[in-house]
Amino acid sequence: MVDYIGVDDVARLIRSIGPGEFIERLAGEILADYRRWDEFEKSARVASHSAVGVIELMPTTDGKLYSFKYVNGHPQNTAAGLLTVTAFGVLADVATGYPLLLSELTVTTALRTAATSALAARLLARPAPRTMALIGNGAQSEFQAIAFHRMLGIRELRLYDVDRAATAKLERNLAAIEALADLSCVRAASAADACRGADIVTTVTADKRNAVILTPPMLRPGMHVNAVGGDCPGKTELHPDVLRSPHARVVVEYAPQSRVEGEIQQMPPDYPVIELAAIAAGRTPGRAAESDLTIFDSVGFALEDYSALRFLHSLLEEGHIERRRIDLVPQLGDPKDLFGGTLGAGAVRRRLRKSA
Amino acid sequence: MVDYIGVDDVARLIRSIGPGEFIERLAGEILADYRRWDEFEKSARVASHSAVGVIELMPTTDGKLYSFKYVNGHPQNTAAGLLTVTAFGVLADVATGYPLLLSELTVTTALRTAATSALAARLLARPAPRTMALIGNGAQSEFQAIAFHRMLGIRELRLYDVDRAATAKLERNLAAIEALADLSCVRAASAADACRGADIVTTVTADKRNAVILTPPMLRPGMHVNAVGGDCPGKTELHPDVLRSPHARVVVEYAPQSRVEGEIQQMPPDYPVIELAAIAAGRTPGRAAESDLTIFDSVGFALEDYSALRFLHSLLEEGHIERRRIDLVPQLGDPKDLFGGTLGAGAVRRRLRKSA
Repeated sequence: MVDYIGVDDVARLIRSIGPGEFIERLAGEILADYRRWDEFEKSARVASHSAVGVIELMPTTDGKLYSFKYVNGHPQNTAAGLLTVTAFGVLADVATGYPLLLSELTVTTALRTAATSALAARLLARPAPRTMALIGNGAQSEFQAIAFHRMLGIRELRLYDVDRAATAKLERNLAAIEALADLSCVRAASAADACRGADIVTTVTADKRNAVILTPPMLRPGMHVNAVGGDCPGKTELHPDVLRSPHARVVVEYAPQSRVEGEIQQMPPDYPVIELAAIAAGRTPGRAAESDLTIFDSVGFALEDYSALRFLHSLLEEGHIERRRIDLVPQLGDPKDLFGGTLGAGAVRRRLRKSA
Repeated sequence: MVDYIGVDDVARLIRSIGPGEFIERLAGEILADYRRWDEFEKSARVASHSAVGVIELMPTTDGKLYSFKYVNGHPQNTAAGLLTVTAFGVLADVATGYPLLLSELTVTTALRTAATSALAARLLARPAPRTMALIGNGAQSEFQAIAFHRMLGIRELRLYDVDRAATAKLERNLAAIEALADLSCVRAASAADACRGADIVTTVTADKRNAVILTPPMLRPGMHVNAVGGDCPGKTELHPDVLRSPHARVVVEYAPQSRVEGEIQQMPPDYPVIELAAIAAGRTPGRAAESDLTIFDSVGFALEDYSALRFLHSLLEEGHIERRRIDLVPQLGDPKDLFGGTLGAGAVRRRLRKSA
């Protein structure tokens, strides 16, 4: 039997412990896993592209646990009342190959992306940031706001989205969260206006194309840019000149994947980047100079989903999530008798005993 | 909500319509899909190897539906009372990226492997075969016996396994199946003895190594060899001289994958093979001469799992399987409001209304 965590389970869990605390604890798990980066088998995701979107599988393993995530990206889905991104994942035992846990990851991906963003910002931003531009006020934005309020101490958000309704939705959702009572939100007139006075600039736009959300005049040395929305081939948010800035210090999750999917797909293959793991492990400093324009070119890496699945499973095992199991794999008295144990006369007899 | 088919559902379905009929109908679906081979996006499986086994993901798509299978292979599992192979899979809608169905595939993989074997044998074996050697009497063997009895008209099985208990288990299981009343089983003293007088030789051994189950003296021109057990790097069943025989006519599922995983991994990269799809579509004859030693070097391809998932889903939609759904992806009133719809105040209110 395989443990199952559905959307309702995750929603109940997060509402009970609070999204800020969940994100912060998850960030701790992600950091711990990035610190043992070399133990992980890493590969770029396996993507299947169609005219309207992409379906991806993202596997990884540390030799003890194996995980993969299924995730799609379909920008036109919202017109049909569907989510742009849905995801689920599996945690499995490497020693036996048996799946241990199947879990929803749509909500959890938003939480782990925000946790990773805040984790990277802690390592890269200047101390005590107070104001963050939040450009793109769609599905990911609340999670980013909560993560940066909790983990970085952000107390002012400067919001911008081409869709005013998205910003209104974000404000409404944030206003309903008690823990954010000391967070003020300002509507900016443009992306440039949002960046004004910001210590951190977060971009989480959803367009599947090479967009130009940030240009050099919007940014100052010393800022930290958390570029989350550009995450697949042909989908970027930064003007290439931002990356060419002499102050730019670009940090990625897994360089071979980011060179294909991240902002740096716009740069030559030898464009210098630092992997987050090197900073997490203390081998490389995060910010080297006060004037660095640090850029976290985030695309999402399988390790973060591994951490999230491992964390969810530990919460389930500690009793924070009600245990539900599904018969995704057979349980046999004699493992050498698949037929007899499932379809044969023995299985029928066992079933009869069970119902009797 | 995502449809769910568990082990109990599949077992109930198969017992109700009978494994022979299920296999034959599934073989029809697999044949139909192999006939439109060019519509499928094909790739070798994504494997993660450890010291004790392998975990694989096998994705494919025809541009309308996407499927993947998770499958492990852990030969030492049986010592711990666990299955060597477990599997599950997902069918998804390419247009939206949403998963449609999560299904067990452990039992179903055995059924689809047998269906593919029998399908290939229909295209390759000489007409009216009567006797089959069945070497390796483990988890797959009943399924092969049922498939070849039903689809090829095999009425005598010559059984051999290094483990006598496995053969006894197979005999017991087959004896309990009413539809096989006209099938006689003979215990052979060796693999060579099993091959004596056989029209078809099926090998489904489980050893994870380069074993030599069949050698040239055991085989005659005109026979059909259904080599199922050798299915990953370092795991083969045929002596390379069998493949070097001037009579050998080797058919594989997907050449790039089979050259790594199949019997032909022992041969140079230009060793001539025919893809099953070419025969299925009638572009190439199956058997070219009476004296051909046809060899189906089967490793299992993602298309077969796609066919199986599509077939199971159609049976579910026709009411042959009780519909069960799991909350693997969120259902939102406003797809642009992931936070509000799952974790926010709106979700809580909706929940209260639901329970009220």
